[in-house]
Amino acid sequence: MIVIKVGGAEGIDLDALAADAAALIRSGRRAVVVHGGSHATNTLSERLGHPPTFITSPSGHTSRRTDRRTLEILQMACRGVLSQGLVERLQRNGVNAVGLSGMDGRLWEGTRKEVVRSVKEGRIRLIRDDFTGTVDRVNVGLLRVLLDAGLTPVVSPPAISVNHEAINVDADRAAARTAAALGAEDLLLLSNVSGLMRAFPDESTLVPRVARSEVEAAAGWAHGRMKKKVLGAGEALSEGVRRVIIGDARRSAAVTRALAGEGTVFQ
Amino acid sequence: MIVIKVGGAEGIDLDALAADAAALIRSGRRAVVVHGGSHATNTLSERLGHPPTFITSPSGHTSRRTDRRTLEILQMACRGVLSQGLVERLQRNGVNAVGLSGMDGRLWEGTRKEVVRSVKEGRIRLIRDDFTGTVDRVNVGLLRVLLDAGLTPVVSPPAISVNHEAINVDADRAAARTAAALGAEDLLLLSNVSGLMRAFPDESTLVPRVARSEVEAAAGWAHGRMKKKVLGAGEALSEGVRRVIIGDARRSAAVTRALAGEGTVFQ
Repeated sequence: MIVIKVGGAEGIDLDALAADAAALIRSGRRAVVVHGGSHATNTLSERLGHPPTFITSPSGHTSRRTDRRTLEILQMACRGVLSQGLVERLQRNGVNAVGLSGMDGRLWEGTRKEVVRSVKEGRIRLIRDDFTGTVDRVNVGLLRVLLDAGLTPVVSPPAISVNHEAINVDADRAAARTAAALGAEDLLLLSNVSGLMRAFPDESTLVPRVARSEVEAAAGWAHGRMKKKVLGAGEALSEGVRRVIIGDARRSAAVTRALAGEGTVFQ
Repeated sequence: MIVIKVGGAEGIDLDALAADAAALIRSGRRAVVVHGGSHATNTLSERLGHPPTFITSPSGHTSRRTDRRTLEILQMACRGVLSQGLVERLQRNGVNAVGLSGMDGRLWEGTRKEVVRSVKEGRIRLIRDDFTGTVDRVNVGLLRVLLDAGLTPVVSPPAISVNHEAINVDADRAAARTAAALGAEDLLLLSNVSGLMRAFPDESTLVPRVARSEVEAAAGWAHGRMKKKVLGAGEALSEGVRRVIIGDARRSAAVTRALAGEGTVFQ
């Protein structure tokens, strides 16, 4: 079993990626594909006159301000554009894919943050109408039912809260949880970077391997979205995933290369 | 087994409709929910600066001009807005729903019209880049797998062509095909009309019952989108569905009322 998380940033050739993933799946590997939609959500938000805004937590983490309108736009981007695009590409390559959000079948159950703390001009502001949270539980039953029927699930945010609200969740960490819950051997986190760098963006400082004992140190080297990937990698390893690879989705045969150990291998 | 087709036009209270459908499903009835997205697609098309256009066939049928951009907007509307909205509402009412498009698992396989004929100012124009078609085959396997796992499928356009392209299909007729393929007893076509009228829009001419032998005559009374509903009703009956009801989704308890025979019953 393998979980392949696909980034949606610019510079990624989804046609090539889908063809490569499809070849692996057709060879008999059971796979779940996970994707986010940050870039597409930003673009669509601008076009719909509701520009994206981001908030910084007191601990310095940056996240998307997700009011209900933003959540709807995120759903349009994830479900309408990216999920359907991946499903269509996988189908074209002979893989019978099924697009799902974390709400479908309560696949990703989580907790909505009732209050989000935002630091602005040195002051902490409390935001109560934000729809973000974390995935606490992955209902693998639905995934297993689909995999057993020869289908390949393609999963994306939002997740669903215990109070049945759609919530925005980080797709890297949700992919890590999904890999752990499925008992996957490999988790690939493919995006528009070549891997974790000790001194980003200096490519010569790419870290080829991170041992379990080094994950905390590695998190210290990570910047921006890479932080969540390293965090997810650590969580996946500690929950039984054998290997996590942060790989480059801009190159051809990205899945094959990552499985061959290109990028940053957490093991 | 029941198939409930929900219209997306203005005036429909989706909260009430979802609650009513959920009560039926919780009582033990196996159900598949189908929806389209015409109204939401129109709204979103306008907002994204790609206003909807419609074409008239030589035989007088009107359909949406579906270039690739329109198809993407339709996917955003159907998958991102309506499907996720229905799934969230059903979940809130204790029904574990799963949103799918006709592409997912090749649920609705169809044929793309390679050439669409459009009449404009008395002349016939051939359109070759239109992504519309009809559902030829419903892969009920995926629906059965989900239903057996206690899940309620919520299905919407697009369908997928034999050449793996997303295609826009009429949701009323796709619902009819789905009901027939599942061997459903009842098909409900709920929208913002009280039923078929002999002289639309005169509500006093509502037709309470249409026998199998009268379907052709009934199609003659229908205007606009009602024509597809009557056509779908006829197809469903001829393929073994026991009863088709065209009912009013603007009223409370729309599902319960339709099952009690309110609206136009085809039997």
